[in-house]
This record gives sequence, structure tokens and C-alpha cells, in this order.
Amino acid sequence: MKLFYSPASPYVRMVSALALETGQADSIERLPSAAGPVKRDASILAHNPSGKVPTALLEDGSALYDSRVICEYLDARHQGPRLFPAEGPARWQALTLFALAQALLDAALLARYESALRPEDKRWDDWLEGQLAKVDSSVAELEADWIDRLEAAFDIGALGVACALGYLDFRFAERDWRATAPRLAAWYAEVSKRPSLAQTVPQG
Amino acid sequence: MKLFYSPASPYVRMVSALALETGQADSIERLPSAAGPVKRDASILAHNPSGKVPTALLEDGSALYDSRVICEYLDARHQGPRLFPAEGPARWQALTLFALAQALLDAALLARYESALRPEDKRWDDWLEGQLAKVDSSVAELEADWIDRLEAAFDIGALGVACALGYLDFRFAERDWRATAPRLAAWYAEVSKRPSLAQTVPQG
Repeated sequence: MKLFYSPASPYVRMVSALALETGQADSIERLPSAAGPVKRDASILAHNPSGKVPTALLEDGSALYDSRVICEYLDARHQGPRLFPAEGPARWQALTLFALAQALLDAALLARYESALRPEDKRWDDWLEGQLAKVDSSVAELEADWIDRLEAAFDIGALGVACALGYLDFRFAERDWRATAPRLAAWYAEVSKRPSLAQTVPQG
Repeated sequence: MKLFYSPASPYVRMVSALALETGQADSIERLPSAAGPVKRDASILAHNPSGKVPTALLEDGSALYDSRVICEYLDARHQGPRLFPAEGPARWQALTLFALAQALLDAALLARYESALRPEDKRWDDWLEGQLAKVDSSVAELEADWIDRLEAAFDIGALGVACALGYLDFRFAERDWRATAPRLAAWYAEVSKRPSLAQTVPQG
């Protein structure tokens, strides 16, 4: 499989971390990209009209996206324990937690674009605060309602949460999410030692 | 199942349409909501930290989100033909097409917020154009590369595309996506007659 890649993207990191967790990292050929919400990358656009990373290309030439789909595809291809529970409440909880992590990241990326990409005179405080409020609510909910589950099992939901928190450290270190989430911080310190996460720390 | 609901949300429409396709509409109790990217709805926030619709509440009180997860959950609960293919290339193609529809909508919503919600003096043309370019590329790719598949089967990917195109009619009618996509327009005219789509036309 080929993978349009960015070392700063938390969504790409989810795919890379899952590939490492499931012993498939060597079967992925990384393709460099320059994706962004304003500048588009023509090489990605030829396969995915949103122009986003991650976008995968399969052996038959067909494209696969987005991060959720590529993660589930890779998880269906190995023989070890699955990160996506197959069915029942475990599946819906894991997928909901994964969606929470994705929504946290969607809000964090919009906050980042508002405060770093958009021209200063076009920034709107209400928008920035609305997105950051989603980030803060998500961290609070992880600490209050999901931490027992996170501590119990490392599945696709936990992998997604770890990548989301890693992005906060990468781009929002000054906001210190750990201050109000001590159990989540302790969990994150522990899971960050996993090779799948230690080898995919964001760069850019 | 209870469902936080908005009659204008294309993501909610996907859930409502799937419920109608699979004979489960009567088992869903709609909860009114006032979700938005700047004004947050406390009743949703108590269950989903992103504050977005759709958010579902199951009989045991647990929450389920987002639209992709709720759709797959509902599809696993009925006895008729499934809209999510179970495995193999059919599954990955359907999920990629569903992701394309979601990304089209994500871009369309951001364009809508930029041009209708954000104060006029804070609007950034490059951002608006970047999002609209994703919408246009998506429509072009549906017409060029997905139309044979759309015409062949109505699965979760097709349902997602129909809801995405319906949103363009609802909020971007003046852009006339049909002008450059005649086969897609003919397909959409036909599938729009399905009760699941005819009964969920967006309002707001």
C-alpha cells in the first residue's frame, strides 16, 4: 500500500501507529505531500477530491480514504488481535471513542488554522473560542467518563485518543491539557511508551 | 433510541434516511437541538463533548456518535439487506465513497459558515475558495469515477452522496452542481424519489 503522508498530521499518525501495532509498517510506502486547506496538492487530488492526508493507494490502483477507513482496512488484514472490536457494545463504544478523538482533532485543527494560518485581521474570536471549547470539553469528558475504559484496553478508540492528545502537545502545549486531567495524563504517559506512538511523534 | 436532531443537518439526514431504508424510523425518538459551531447546546454536550448532531442515546443511557457510527449501528440491527457491505473490496469502496460524501459536506459546511455565519469583515476569500474547490472537485470525481458504481447499487456510500448533493441544493443552489455533472444529476433525480430521501428533504 502507498500512503500520502505528512509528518505533522495527527490523522496520518493514526494510520502509521495502527500499522506499527499490527506489524504492517514495512508494507506501506510513504508518498510525500503538501496538503493544506488553502493550498491544494495535485498529486493527492488525482485520487481524493478533498486533497487530504491520509489517502492510501491499493495495489490495484484504487484509492482508500479517510483515516478511519484506512485504519479499519489495515486492521482487517493482519492475524493478531484486532484494534476494531468486531461487533456488539465493544464495537460501538470503540467507534464512538474514536469519533470523539476525531472530533477533538477536527476542532483543534480549525483552531490552529484560525490562529496560525488565517490573516490576523480576519480572525474571529468567537470561532476560535468555540473550537477550543470543544477541545476542552473533550478532554474533560475523557477524564470523567472514558478513563476507566482507556486504562482497561488499547483499542482503536484509545489509539485515536493518544494521537489527539499528542497533537495538543504538538500545537497547543501552552494550554496544558494535563492540568485538569491527571488520570488521563498518567494514562497518556504510559501509552506513549508504546513503539507505535514513540515512533510516530509529530514533526513539522 | 433517542436522537438529537436538526432538520437542516445533512449528517442527521444520513441517519434518518438509513432508518427509513431499514424500517427503523419508528424506533427513533427525536430530541430537538440548537447545535452550532459558535453557540453550543448544553443538552447535547452532556452526552457528546463536540456538541454536534447527530448524537444518539441508547436504551442503557450510553451515547453514540457521530453520523458514521450511528448509521453503522442501525444497519447492524435490522434483518433486511445491509447498506454497509460486510467485508472485502465492496466494504472499502462503500466506506471510501461515504467518506467522500462526508468530506464534501465538511467543506460545504465550512464554506457556509465562512459566508453566512462569520462577520463580513472577518471573511477570508482564500479559505472560502479552498473549501468550495473541494466541493467542486468532489462533484467532478463523482461524475467521472463513481457514477457507474452509484447507478449499480444503493448502499451507504450512495446514501451519503445523495444527502451531500441534497445539501448543495439546500444551501448552494446558485452554484448549480448539475451543470457539469449530467449523469450524477440524472442519478440523483432518480434516487431522490426513494421515500428515505423524499421524506427527509432538509428544512431550516
